[in-house]
Amino acid sequence: MAKQESFLTIAGISLNKDLELPLYKQLYNYLKEGILCGRFSSGFRLPSTRAFANELKLSRSTVLLSIEQLIAEGYLESYVGKGTFVSQHLPDLKVKTFQQKQVSLNTAIKLSNRADAFISSRVYDNSSTPAFRPGIPETNEFPFKIWRRLLNKHWRKPEAKNLFYGSGAGYLPLRQEISNYLKLARGVKCSAEQVIIVNGSQQALQIASYLLADANDQVWIENPGYTGAQAAFKSAMLKMVPIAIDSEGLSVKTAISKAPKAKFAYVSPSHQYPMGVIMSLARRLELLEWARANNSWILEDDYDSEFRFKGQPLAALQGLDQANSVVYIGSFSKVLFPALRLGYVVVPQAMTDAFVKARLHFDRGSPWINQMVLADFIAEGHFARHIRKMRVIYAQRRELLISLLADLLAEFELGSSPAGMHLVLYLPANLNDVVVAKKLKENGIEAFPLSNYSLDDSHKMGLVLGYGAVDEHLIISGVKKMVSLIKEYEI
Amino acid sequence: MAKQESFLTIAGISLNKDLELPLYKQLYNYLKEGILCGRFSSGFRLPSTRAFANELKLSRSTVLLSIEQLIAEGYLESYVGKGTFVSQHLPDLKVKTFQQKQVSLNTAIKLSNRADAFISSRVYDNSSTPAFRPGIPETNEFPFKIWRRLLNKHWRKPEAKNLFYGSGAGYLPLRQEISNYLKLARGVKCSAEQVIIVNGSQQALQIASYLLADANDQVWIENPGYTGAQAAFKSAMLKMVPIAIDSEGLSVKTAISKAPKAKFAYVSPSHQYPMGVIMSLARRLELLEWARANNSWILEDDYDSEFRFKGQPLAALQGLDQANSVVYIGSFSKVLFPALRLGYVVVPQAMTDAFVKARLHFDRGSPWINQMVLADFIAEGHFARHIRKMRVIYAQRRELLISLLADLLAEFELGSSPAGMHLVLYLPANLNDVVVAKKLKENGIEAFPLSNYSLDDSHKMGLVLGYGAVDEHLIISGVKKMVSLIKEYEI
Repeated sequence: MAKQESFLTIAGISLNKDLELPLYKQLYNYLKEGILCGRFSSGFRLPSTRAFANELKLSRSTVLLSIEQLIAEGYLESYVGKGTFVSQHLPDLKVKTFQQKQVSLNTAIKLSNRADAFISSRVYDNSSTPAFRPGIPETNEFPFKIWRRLLNKHWRKPEAKNLFYGSGAGYLPLRQEISNYLKLARGVKCSAEQVIIVNGSQQALQIASYLLADANDQVWIENPGYTGAQAAFKSAMLKMVPIAIDSEGLSVKTAISKAPKAKFAYVSPSHQYPMGVIMSLARRLELLEWARANNSWILEDDYDSEFRFKGQPLAALQGLDQANSVVYIGSFSKVLFPALRLGYVVVPQAMTDAFVKARLHFDRGSPWINQMVLADFIAEGHFARHIRKMRVIYAQRRELLISLLADLLAEFELGSSPAGMHLVLYLPANLNDVVVAKKLKENGIEAFPLSNYSLDDSHKMGLVLGYGAVDEHLIISGVKKMVSLIKEYEI
Repeated sequence: MAKQESFLTIAGISLNKDLELPLYKQLYNYLKEGILCGRFSSGFRLPSTRAFANELKLSRSTVLLSIEQLIAEGYLESYVGKGTFVSQHLPDLKVKTFQQKQVSLNTAIKLSNRADAFISSRVYDNSSTPAFRPGIPETNEFPFKIWRRLLNKHWRKPEAKNLFYGSGAGYLPLRQEISNYLKLARGVKCSAEQVIIVNGSQQALQIASYLLADANDQVWIENPGYTGAQAAFKSAMLKMVPIAIDSEGLSVKTAISKAPKAKFAYVSPSHQYPMGVIMSLARRLELLEWARANNSWILEDDYDSEFRFKGQPLAALQGLDQANSVVYIGSFSKVLFPALRLGYVVVPQAMTDAFVKARLHFDRGSPWINQMVLADFIAEGHFARHIRKMRVIYAQRRELLISLLADLLAEFELGSSPAGMHLVLYLPANLNDVVVAKKLKENGIEAFPLSNYSLDDSHKMGLVLGYGAVDEHLIISGVKKMVSLIKEYEI
C-alpha cells in the first residue's frame, strides 16, 4: 500500500470542548465506533496525526493519545514509515452483526418499472477476454510510443479551455479528421459539423433510441443482430420488430409487411453483425425509399467495415441517402481499442442541435484531451497505418482459423464473409449452440452461441468465433480444444 | 495542414474494365462528381497516387492521368511536398445548388416526442469560460507534471486487459480509493463495491432518473436548484415538484404536503446549489424518515463539499441513513477539472447490479487508463494535496470578492455561505436579474441570473458569481466593470 498524505477534511466528527468528556476520548470514541460499525474496515489507512490535529484544531498530543489507546486495544496497527491502519484482526462478531443488519434492510429495494429493461436485457460486462470472444481487437500491435508522445505533447501545459467541459459535439479538429476519413474511405456525405463525438457506439445507440422514437414505438432490427443494439432499444422501451436476414441482408418487404410505420430501421449493411452478409444495392435503395416515403429513420451501424479482405471496399448506405434519413454510427473500439471509449455519429444537418443537446444531458461530453490526441493520431497518418497493419494480421488469422476448421470440422458449414474480426461456424441442427458454448466456456473458450443474437427461434445453430485478439498460437490450440469438445457431443 | 498518409480504403468507386469508358476517365468522373456535389470540399486532401493505385488495383499512370486532368481543369491543386487538395476556387454555383437542395429536404425532420424534453431543457454547452461563470475550477495550479508521469507509467506498455471494455462499475482500485476518501472525509458509509465510476455527475443524474422513477412520476427538487439536475429529470420525463429552500434547506413538511409519494428527493444538503444553505440535522432526519417510511429514494448531490472555509466539515446525509435509501453523487469536475469526465455514485449494496447494468447500456464504461491514473493520483496523496492547495486559493478569492462587493455595492445583500466556488449577490427587487446578466454578458462577464435556477416565480433576484477560475486581477477588474454596469440600471 502506498504511503499517503492525509485527507484534508474529516467529516462527521463533532468535538466539543465544553463537554465533560475530554477531547482525546471524544476522538477515540468516534474512531472506535467507525471501526466497529465497519465504516473504517481492516486495512483502512488513517490520516497522519498532524493532519488530524490541523483539521480538527486539536493539539497533536491529544490526537496521539486517542490513536495510542486504539493501538493498545488492538483496533489500530502502526507501521513505521507507512502509517496507521485499522487492524487486520478485528473482533469479527460485532462487524458481522452490523453488516447483516444492512443486508436485511436491502430487501425493500424498489426500482422503476423501466429499470427492469436495463436489468433484464443482454449487455455484457466483458472485462475478461478469453479465446474467440467476439468484438475484441488485437492491442499488442498498437503504437503506444506514438500515443504516449501525443499524450505528453497535449498534457505538457494544457490551456485552461481544454480542461473545462468543452463542446458537447466534441473537439472540432477531430470531427474534421473523421469527416475527411469517412468521405473518402466510407463514401459518407458529411461536413465536420455533422460529426458528433460519443463514447463509443453504445452511447450513440442509446441517445438515438430516445431521440428518434418514443416508448412503445416499433423499430426494425436485424435478426440475428447486435445484442448491444437490442439492449439499447429495450431499455429505451421500444418495440423491436425482428426482421430475418437472408443472403441480401434485411428483407425490406418482410419488414414493411410486419411494421410499415416503424420509427427507424437498425441495420449493419456493410457487414451484417453477426452473419457477415452485405446488403445488396437493391435492398439499400428499397430501404432508403421506405424511410423517405414514411418519414422514418435508418440507423446505420458501420461497426467494422475497415477490415475487408477481398474485393472492393463497400460504400456506406449513408452515401446513397438523398432524404437525410440516415444516422450513421462508427466506433474506434475495434480499429484502435475499446478502453478509449470514443466513437462518432454522423447525423443530418438539421439534427445536429438535438443530438448535441441530448448528448449534453447524458454526460456532457467525452474527455477532451483524449480527443485531441486522437485527432493528431489521425492527422499524422498513424490511424491509417495502424488499420493497414491490422488488416494484414486479421487476414492471416482468419485464413488460419478457416483452414484449421476446414481440416478438423470439414462437415461443418462456415460463414463466408471476407471481412471483420469474427467468423460464424454453423452447427448441425442436433447440437444446441447454447449448450456447446457453455461447455466451451467452462474450458476457457468463449465463442458466443448464435442463439444469443436472435430475438426469436428462427435462427440456425452456430458459434460466433472472434479472432481479433487471438494470436496464431492460441488459434491453433483453441481450435483443437474446441473441436475435441464439440466431438464429444457428436458421438 | 499536416502531411498525411493515404487512407486505406476508398469506398463508393466502382471501376469496370469492361466498360468502353477508359479507367482513368471513370476515376476522373468519380472525383469530379464528388467535388461538385460537395462531398470532397475545398481543402480536402486526396490520398497519394500510390495509395489510389494500390487500393483500386490500377496502375499509377492511370491514376496520375485522372488527377492531372482535374488539376488542369481547376478542380484540384497540387503542392510539392504537401499533396493534392480540392481547389480553394471552385465554381460556386453548382456547389451551392447542391447544398440548397440538401437543406430543403431537412424541413421534414421528425424526432420523438421525448426529444422535445432534451431540446427544450436547460443544459449548457459551456465550452467558453468568461469571468464569474459558476462551476469552473482553477486549472493553472493543477500538477500536470505528476499527471504526465502517471500517464506515462500506465501507457508505457499497457496490458491488453486494460485496453478492453473493462468492468462497467469502473476500475476497482479507484473505487477503493474513493471509498476510503469518502468514509473519512465525508462520513459516507460504503464499501468499494458500492462505488460506481461514471462520467461526471450528469451521467449519474441521468442514470438515476431512469432507474429510480418512471415517466410521469413525481420527484422533489430543490428550488432554486441545479439546472443540470432539472435537465436530467425533464429528459427522463419526470414530474418535478419544486420545493422552496429556506434557511434550513429543503422543507420536508412542505414537500410532503405537495407530493407525499414522490419517488425521490434531489438534495444538495452540504452546500445547497446555488443558495449555499446547509441542511439542518432536523431536516436531514425528517427527510430520511420520509424516504424510509415511503420506500422512496434520496439523491444526494455532494458537488463541492471539499471547499469549506469555516467551521467543521459536514458529514454527508448518506452517513446518517439506516434504510439504504440514499444514492450519493460526487464528481471530480470541480476538485480536479471537468474535461477529465469522471465522477462516482455510491449506491446501496442491493442496487449495485442494476446501476452497473444501466451504466453498461448507456456507454459501457469510462476510459480505463484515465481511471488508473486517477487511482494512483489519489493513492500517492496528490489529490488531497491539490484540494488543500485549492482551498487556500479559493478562500482568498472569495474574501477578495466579498470585500470588493462590500465596498462597491454595500447596499446589496450577499449570500453568506462559507464554502464552494461561487457567491450569490442579491439584487434589489427592481432589478431584473436576467436583464442584468444579459447586459453583463455583452460586456464579457458571465454571472448567471438566479432566475435561471428557479422552476417558478418565487425566487429572489440575484446573480450567481463563480470565482473558481477567476484570478485576483480579474476579480478586481471584473467587479469594477460589473458594478459600473449595474449602477447604470440603478439610476
